Amino acid sequence: MANIQIDELREKLDDINLQLLDLINERAELAKEIGRVKKAQGINRFDPVRERKMLDLLSEKNRGPFDTSTLQHIFKEIFKASLELQEDDHRKALLV
Amino acid sequence: MANIQIDELREKLDDINLQLLDLINERAELAKEIGRVKKAQGINRFDPVRERKMLDLLSEKNRGPFDTSTLQHIFKEIFKASLELQEDDHRKALLV
Repeated sequence: MANIQIDELREKLDDINLQLLDLINERAELAKEIGRVKKAQGINRFDPVRERKMLDLLSEKNRGPFDTSTLQHIFKEIFKASLELQEDDHRKALLV
Repeated sequence: MANIQIDELREKLDDINLQLLDLINERAELAKEIGRVKKAQGINRFDPVRERKMLDLLSEKNRGPFDTSTLQHIFKEIFKASLELQEDDHRKALLV
C-alpha cells in the first residue's frame, strides 16, 4: 500500500524545512551585517548579555510543543554558527 | 551615543528569531503527527533514509551564507529534538 498519509505529511515537513532554511540564512545575513557594524565601531562581536536577552524573549514567546530548554539548545547552535560566520568574515577582511 | 544602527538590526534579528520559533514549533507539531501515524501503522519512528533525503534537499537548496555542513548540523539538532518529542508522546500514550 502506498502510504499516502505519511507522504502528504512529509511534503508539508519538507516545505517547512525549506522555509526554515531560508529564514536561517536570512538571519545569518543579518548577523553578518551586525558583525560588520560592530567591527566598524570597534565593539566585541560576542555579547553574552544580548544572547541572554534573545533566549529570554524566545522563552517568553514559546507556546510549544517544544519545551524552552530544547528550543534554547537549538537557538544556541544557530547563535554559535552565526558568530563563526562573523569571524570568517572578519578573517577574510584581514586578508584583503 | 545611542547605537541606533545596531538597535535597528537587532530588532530585525528578534523578529526573525520569533518567526523561527513559530516555524520550529509548527514543524514539531507536524513531526508529532507523523509519529502518531507511524505508530498506528506499526512503523519505526526513526528513518535514517528519510533523514538523509531531507538533508540532501537542504543541501541542494542552500544558497548561503551558511555552508551546508553548518546547516546540516543545525537541522540534525532539530531532527533529534523532534524524535525525542515523538518518543515522549509515545511514552505518554503508554501511560494512558
